[in-house]
Amino acid sequence: MLTPSQKPHERLAEVLAVELDQVNALIRDRMASKHAPRIPEVTAHLVEAGGKRLRPMLTLAAAKLCGYDGPYHVHLAATVEFIHTATLLHDDVVDESAKRRGRPTANLLWDNKSSVLVGDYLFARAFQLMTETENLRVLNILSDASATIAEGEVLQLSAAQDLTTSEDIYLQVVRGKTAALFSAATEVGGVIAGRPANEVQALFDYGDALGISFQIVDDLLDYWGSDATGKNIGDDFRERKLTLPLIKAYAKADADEQAFWKRVIEKGDQQEGDLEHALALLNTHGALEDTRQEALAWAAKAKTAMASLPQSELRDLLIDLNDYVVARVS
Amino acid sequence: MLTPSQKPHERLAEVLAVELDQVNALIRDRMASKHAPRIPEVTAHLVEAGGKRLRPMLTLAAAKLCGYDGPYHVHLAATVEFIHTATLLHDDVVDESAKRRGRPTANLLWDNKSSVLVGDYLFARAFQLMTETENLRVLNILSDASATIAEGEVLQLSAAQDLTTSEDIYLQVVRGKTAALFSAATEVGGVIAGRPANEVQALFDYGDALGISFQIVDDLLDYWGSDATGKNIGDDFRERKLTLPLIKAYAKADADEQAFWKRVIEKGDQQEGDLEHALALLNTHGALEDTRQEALAWAAKAKTAMASLPQSELRDLLIDLNDYVVARVS
Repeated sequence: MLTPSQKPHERLAEVLAVELDQVNALIRDRMASKHAPRIPEVTAHLVEAGGKRLRPMLTLAAAKLCGYDGPYHVHLAATVEFIHTATLLHDDVVDESAKRRGRPTANLLWDNKSSVLVGDYLFARAFQLMTETENLRVLNILSDASATIAEGEVLQLSAAQDLTTSEDIYLQVVRGKTAALFSAATEVGGVIAGRPANEVQALFDYGDALGISFQIVDDLLDYWGSDATGKNIGDDFRERKLTLPLIKAYAKADADEQAFWKRVIEKGDQQEGDLEHALALLNTHGALEDTRQEALAWAAKAKTAMASLPQSELRDLLIDLNDYVVARVS
Repeated sequence: MLTPSQKPHERLAEVLAVELDQVNALIRDRMASKHAPRIPEVTAHLVEAGGKRLRPMLTLAAAKLCGYDGPYHVHLAATVEFIHTATLLHDDVVDESAKRRGRPTANLLWDNKSSVLVGDYLFARAFQLMTETENLRVLNILSDASATIAEGEVLQLSAAQDLTTSEDIYLQVVRGKTAALFSAATEVGGVIAGRPANEVQALFDYGDALGISFQIVDDLLDYWGSDATGKNIGDDFRERKLTLPLIKAYAKADADEQAFWKRVIEKGDQQEGDLEHALALLNTHGALEDTRQEALAWAAKAKTAMASLPQSELRDLLIDLNDYVVARVS
């Protein structure tokens, strides 16, 4: 039985327990490698590391709320998790990050080489899995999403340290790094269930808006969070990433403040006290509050899209999940 | 008109000129990115860098000698080149190499981050392209090949510096890093043309054996080549890679020689004169000659496979190409 105190993703995990077990079994089976034992060693670290299986649950929930009875939603859910895990492995190389989900990243435990190659292996495994569905439309959706993800990551790299980054570019980066896989995850659920175009569109819109609000909240918490979130406060600041709070603050900066941002972000000359000064500027100009409002607006769009689908337990859980994402900053 | 003095890949390029132009146009079109101009900057460097387009020509030639008249052999040829280019970008990160085809590698010109992410972009583009063929069997073949490639690269990473690496493991590595894409390139040509199983198998066998002999020759030239080949002599030695010449020499090493190999390969303690001593040992034990014989044996297998197909100009050019690969060490 569900209890109201459970978090939405925990309730989803309970409702989808049978399918999630199948997804986990498929993931374990497909990440194995007869010849290269390092592959499961590297991936087990990530796949077993307590990720919430959020993306696979989106696919399973979308397919099931559309009345799909299997078996390919399991393949697609595993595909989505493989793409996500591959992206994480490559991100850690790109970000040179030392922690992920509060644990050392694979590239520190092993090396950058393994992270790159095992990520490639998972991408290939993802494409093998999705091909097994023999559904050309899901192949299109998921390969398009993969291209959008990589494009967004490259765009983020170019936008890093560039104070002229616009909110439009930020949105493209966010679609790439987060929303593209969320929207593909929900869309393929509707497609594999053979639902009509308007329902598939609603599922896409939900995933897209959920992903965007999710990422905006994440970027906000980088200036606003606590160690409890598993993030180091100020990581984006130290890595000189142009996220929404900073873009909004820079747009309102006077000459002195512009000089400050140029020094710490463009030149990367960061000194003791700079993060505190940056936080003060973000607050002065209401950049954090404006960012929060934007996250809430995207969450509202996600809710509207999902609410357009016929009522069901899973539909309502996805609406709750959306509420929960922004509750971290509500 | 063809002249007998032309090299086989040059003659192939002439015979396939129309299709190669289509492949190049498709590659240019699909490597573009509206949002991330760094992508074509990075890839142009590689795609325009005078690669021989060997793999796409294998696909085009295989399809055409099977009587296929298009249009999807062009998509598949571009797919194969994208997978190859993505692999090169990631290899350069993994190998930390400074030169490729005699020019600085992308990871030095740009950075490792761009190489990883642009490689991912090209993988995704490859899967988009192959999906457009709507042929599930070629999707299986090419996603399987991608997994084999990544698996082989990881295996190579584990085998590096490991003097107990067997010739079997070496062969698996070679299939992964080279032959898997060669055999997929030729196999999909037969599949898209709808040829019977025995002909598709012959095309696979040709690509597999050609790829293996190609890689063995490459590994041999690392101890035997000249600067004219664009390779730095002794690169594999310095990177402590267990390639066939070294595996064969170590199998025949006496106690003193084993101690030498352990110092320079396992411990990586390399001093002035060690490469010269290694070369002497490789010669003493006939390791270079034995490696050469193995390359020739694989080339003979490739020739037998291709000769089983009906005679045609393209078939004979592929046989010539195979002869040419091993002619570098004949």
